[in-house]
Order: sequence, then C-alpha cells, then structure tokens
Amino acid sequence: MSAGPSRRALFAGAGVLGAAGAVAACAPDKAAARSATVPFHGAHQAGIATPAQDRLAFAAYDLTVTGSTEERRAALIAMLRTWTRAAAAMTAGNPVPGESNLGAAPPADTGEAVGLKPANLTITIGFGPSLFDDRFGLAGKRPAALADLPKLPGEDLDPDRSGGDLAVQACSDDPVVAFHAIRNLARLGRGTAVMRWSQLGFGKASSNGADQQTPRNLMGFKDGTRNIHGEDTATMNRWVWAGSETDQPWMRGGSYMVTRRIAMRIEAWDRDFLKDQQDVIGRYKYSGAPLSGHKEFDTPDFHATGMGGPAIPADAHIRLAAHENNGGVRILRRAYNYTDGVVPSSGELDAGLFFICFQQDPRKQFVPLQRRLGSMDALNEYIEHVGSGLFACPPGVRPGQYWGQALFS
Amino acid sequence: MSAGPSRRALFAGAGVLGAAGAVAACAPDKAAARSATVPFHGAHQAGIATPAQDRLAFAAYDLTVTGSTEERRAALIAMLRTWTRAAAAMTAGNPVPGESNLGAAPPADTGEAVGLKPANLTITIGFGPSLFDDRFGLAGKRPAALADLPKLPGEDLDPDRSGGDLAVQACSDDPVVAFHAIRNLARLGRGTAVMRWSQLGFGKASSNGADQQTPRNLMGFKDGTRNIHGEDTATMNRWVWAGSETDQPWMRGGSYMVTRRIAMRIEAWDRDFLKDQQDVIGRYKYSGAPLSGHKEFDTPDFHATGMGGPAIPADAHIRLAAHENNGGVRILRRAYNYTDGVVPSSGELDAGLFFICFQQDPRKQFVPLQRRLGSMDALNEYIEHVGSGLFACPPGVRPGQYWGQALFS
Repeated sequence: MSAGPSRRALFAGAGVLGAAGAVAACAPDKAAARSATVPFHGAHQAGIATPAQDRLAFAAYDLTVTGSTEERRAALIAMLRTWTRAAAAMTAGNPVPGESNLGAAPPADTGEAVGLKPANLTITIGFGPSLFDDRFGLAGKRPAALADLPKLPGEDLDPDRSGGDLAVQACSDDPVVAFHAIRNLARLGRGTAVMRWSQLGFGKASSNGADQQTPRNLMGFKDGTRNIHGEDTATMNRWVWAGSETDQPWMRGGSYMVTRRIAMRIEAWDRDFLKDQQDVIGRYKYSGAPLSGHKEFDTPDFHATGMGGPAIPADAHIRLAAHENNGGVRILRRAYNYTDGVVPSSGELDAGLFFICFQQDPRKQFVPLQRRLGSMDALNEYIEHVGSGLFACPPGVRPGQYWGQALFS
Repeated sequence: MSAGPSRRALFAGAGVLGAAGAVAACAPDKAAARSATVPFHGAHQAGIATPAQDRLAFAAYDLTVTGSTEERRAALIAMLRTWTRAAAAMTAGNPVPGESNLGAAPPADTGEAVGLKPANLTITIGFGPSLFDDRFGLAGKRPAALADLPKLPGEDLDPDRSGGDLAVQACSDDPVVAFHAIRNLARLGRGTAVMRWSQLGFGKASSNGADQQTPRNLMGFKDGTRNIHGEDTATMNRWVWAGSETDQPWMRGGSYMVTRRIAMRIEAWDRDFLKDQQDVIGRYKYSGAPLSGHKEFDTPDFHATGMGGPAIPADAHIRLAAHENNGGVRILRRAYNYTDGVVPSSGELDAGLFFICFQQDPRKQFVPLQRRLGSMDALNEYIEHVGSGLFACPPGVRPGQYWGQALFS
C-alpha cells in the first residue's frame, strides 16, 4: 500500500540544476531562466550585484532568544549556521537539509517548492542597528556607517513595517521559490527569531544590469535607466562594496542596504496630465528619454532649456537624484512594485514601490540623497515613505563558513 | 528637443500579439507563453475553462453611483461598456483605449504594462447578490442560484474581505499585467464604483487542464489532481456552465463563482508529522498519490484498508471532498496561493489559499460540499475561512456587446 517515495527519489525533481549561471537571468528564454542558478558562495553575497530577478520576498526578524549574553550569542550563531546551510541548499535548487520523509517527524522542508526550479534564487542577509545593542556582546562591532537613519523629510514611518534585528532578501524569477525561502528560514529560526514584517514584490521595478530591459514602476515610468550595473566592478567598488574605508574589518566586501516602503498616491497620479507627470520625473513617459534628449540612454543635459525654462525642471526627480548634482554620489537600486490590497477608508489601492538600495556608506549616500529628494522633489506630492529598514549585509561566505562569521570571531 | 513618440510608435510595443492562443498557456516554453493571448470574445467568458495562469489579481467593487434608478442603471451600463472595451483591448495586449499621449490630459492608460506581453491575460466579471437589490431595477433578474451563502462551519468572515456588488478576476502569467488590468478598471469606474477589497495571488495552486503539471499549495501538497479540466466539455456543461436549468435566461452560458480566503495556520502545520499531514489530506505529500494507491492520478479507493483502518482516513480531505462521496457533485477550482505579510500580534505569516471555484449552482455544489468539509474535515485544525464572495459570471460577449448585456435588456 505504501507509495511513499524514497528520499532520494523524492527530491530528485527539486535537485535538478541548470548550469546556465547568473547571466541567464537576462536571457529572453524564460524556460532557461527558470532552471538557472546563482552561486551562493563567493567574495560578495549574491542578490546585490546579481541582475534583479522578477520577484521579491523580503522579511525582517527580531531576535527573541533569552538567557545570558553568551547563551544568546550561541543561539544566534547556531541559527546563522542553520540558515546558511539552508540558503546554500535552496539557492542550488535543493530542499532544506534534513529528513523530510520520516512519517513520525515534521518534514525538514515545507514542500511547496518541490519540483520547482530555483529560477535564479538569491538569499541575502543583513544585520540591523539593533543587533549591536548589549544583547549579543556586539556593541563594539557596530560599523559607524550603520548609524541609525535620521528623521527624513517626506516620511511617516509605521513601526510595524520598519526596523528589525535581521533582514533577508529573497529574489527569484518564481515567486513561490522566493516565498519558500523566507518561510523556511522563519521556521528554522523559531525559538530564536520571530518575523517582524515582510514584503512581497510582484514585479521588479529597476534594472541593474547592462543587458536588462528597463522595467516600469507603477507610475508607468521606466525605472533604473541610470542605475549602477552589477557587472561594473569599478563603480561597485567605489560606491557599493565596503572596503578599506570601513572601521569594521568584518564588513569588508559587504554592503549597506536601505529599504523604504514608498506608498504611491496612485489616484492623484493617474489624474495628472501627461506633461505634468513627465515634468515631475524629468523624462518622457513612453520612451524613457530625458526631457533634454531623444533616447532612453541619452545623458540628461541639466543645462538645456525648453519653453521658458530648463528642459528638465528644477524640481524634477532625475535632476535632484542625479550624481552630477550630488557630488558624484551613486547608489545601487533594486526596487520592486508592491500592492497590499485596498485602504479600507478610501477604497484606494495600497500600492507603491518597495525601494531597496545598496551602498558603501548610507551616511554619505542614501541619507543626503533622500534629504534632498524628500524636501524638494516634485514627486513628493504623489509619494510617502511609510516603512524603513537599514541593514549591514556582511560579505559573501566560503563553503563551510556561515553568514557574518567574521562578526563573531 | 521633443522626444515624445507618436501614439502609434508609442504603443507598438504593447500591441504586438502572439497568435498562439489559449493552449500556449500550458507550453513549457515560457517565452511563448508570455506572448500568448486568450481570446476575449466567445460563448463563455475567458478565465473559467482557461488553464490557470500563474498569477492572479482579484478585486471586488461596490457601486457608489447615486441618482434615480434610471440614472444609476445608465451609469452602471456605461461603466460596463467602458470596462468591456478596456478588457478586450488589454487581453489583446493593447493599452486602455483612448488618448495616452496628449500632454494636457491624463493618459488613458496608466502605463506600467507598456512593452509587456499579455501573457495569457484573462479578465472575468461577476455580479454579486447585492447588485440585485432595488438600486438598479434588477431585483427581478436575480437568479435563484445566486442565493446568499448561508453561515457555514469553519468560517470567521471579515466583512472588509467579503462581498461586493461586482468582482473582476484578472489572471496572467505576468503579475504586472494582471495588476494593470484591475487598476485600470478601478480607474475607469471612478464615480460609479469603488474598490471594496482586492487580493493578489502569487502562484497558482490548482491545475485545471489535462496537460498542466499539478502545482502545490502552501501546505506543500499537490492541489487539483482530480479537478475538472476546462477542455472536458461534457463535464463543464454538467457542472460548471449555467444552462437550461436556470430561471434567468441572461445567465445561460455563464457560471457562478465562489471565492474564499482560506487562512492557513502555517506554523502548526509545519510542526505536524509527515504521516499526520498525509492522513489529513489523504495523499502522499511528494508523489501526490492517494494513500490507497501508488501514483498521483490513481483513482482513490475509499474502501481500501491499511494498518488498522481505512487507508484513506474517514476525515481525510480528499474523502470528504470526493464526488464519489457527494452524490457526484463536482466544482471547477481555480485557486491561488497568497501571503499578505505578518500578523503583527503573532509574528506568523498571514498566508494561505485564495480559493476560487466555478459551478452551475452553488446551492447544490459549493454549499453542501463546504458544509460537510467545514464540519468534518481533518484539515479544519489548520485552516479558517476568513473572506467570502459570491458572484454570477454572465456568459461571454460577442464583439460590440458589453459584459452582462442580456441582464439589462
């Protein structure tokens, strides 16, 4: 009567890996992309320079473990070891390690991704400022660049959608695969960590690879035309990866992630005239060209004049955000569209952009950029920052290591 | 200086259609699937018999228009005409009809799907029981089969996630395309209708086509193994399409849609032993075979015995739901996985199944099935129905007609 398959047979379907590698994420052939994998191990964590996958599942966790500092620290390290093993397995298209086919035990893997390809799954961890309080003996390891974000203009932050001791970004071209990663890490962390908030992204909203087509955000504009490309090593080293400038050696090769849930006033935006929308952004809506140019990738000319004023208005988003107008400062964006239903009081869609960016030092990059944008950007009439996160993403791991190992040595 | 493209050039990208037709939804080549279209016009609405696409965007609307009965009715008809034209365009891969490239006007289309393929987009409308009150002069047109659902066991319904005068199911293999449809209908309905609730599904959780692989729900089990197949015309005519039995001729060729937001107690489920999970469902988790058999599509043998009892337990889900044990009654399921973040009080994922089913008469199909399942199913320990909708989906439209036209004639 028993039809229970052997464990080997059981997971054979989930373990079939494509060898196409990360670059296949950009291939037009979606079937190839589904079977592609991104290497988990390396000098940097995957999911930062990796060309943005189609879908996001993101979660922030609070550590709830109690006991002495040593006990808490040991529990945190144990969880990071378990998470690292699980992440390495899942990104390779394998189930969570452990026994999943014993009748008298809960399966080690929850099963919803059995038979699905990894579809370029990457899992990226970050440590929040609160991890460096006195609970884990890590106060002396807090990087100066992980300074709490100051109060910024244009924000009205919901504490239930902000902060967290840890965060995990899971990206894949298959949303079930991304969700499966977050869910199983939550499960493996039980007793040590509890999920504080989570966010699904249903479509990537910014390209960060030279050969990716620029996607559109929910305002209908192309997003990421001038983004840093992950394959541009010099720019990554200058603006994204922590290097010799950091006061905390354990962060070398890592990066600082800022997340912002940016709610869009979609109804007001949709009633706005096309010309006004274009003036707010500083680009033509359909071609994506700057208002000073003709093609999407034309370099914006902030000195060009149009009818009675600058071609790109003084308060246009791309003018205020441009590195030319911010002392050269750049960030790597990796944003996703989101919607979480209807705001019951208004009947408006609760939708917008889950903005993720990576950088070498938020104090010198995200904070001054957002201070300027939040106070002057014409876009502010249509958006509000309602959630915020700041996380130090440690460097990549070698086989046998665990995430952030140098932090504890 | 102007780089504004002509309207023709502008939408050329969005207007490129694949000719592959509905059947391409099942093709393993995802690139082909992305460019595929499902015909909008026909005897039945698309999105019912259509093999389930990967993603769902669903919205329920309340009509808010005021005035005399005639004025309200005229406004409703005008909106349905506008919606039908827009739906026909969007499913063909075209933008919402109208002017999108005039500077001094809001674009007719919101733009986020420009350049994306329709990816088998279907848009399906339904009318809720409340549409047939005295506001629109439709009280005499209410089908008997659209009787309000009775209070059912195992439910604790949130009114903010239930009901609605109208509902729209948009399904596509691209979530941005599905969302774009819902958002633009909401926009076109402004002044007449307001969104009451909405739901994104991030992965299909039931197959309804003979050549579709059976997907898994968030419990990790295959879902839809014994579902009705849309291409099985005899079964569709017997159990899904309204026919000569209906008291309301305008519904002939239509179907009744029941939606249930089914929250899963994921943490409790994940702690359950594999054997218990399998006994709850009545199937092996990985192969999908019934506990009485060896392969997924083996017909369950409800008389088979195992160790000390029936092979498929008395309270197993598949036993209670099987047509053999319900006087032959069947329904067409079209369910999607959902998650909406974290329940703040518990840190548990707010996740589960957005269950959609279609049938000829809910009084004889969904209601008795759910009454039985809700009171006896072993699964009830792990699920709760928290949202509910009931909608009469009119038959398909011919070119020039509008959705539900026969209802108003």
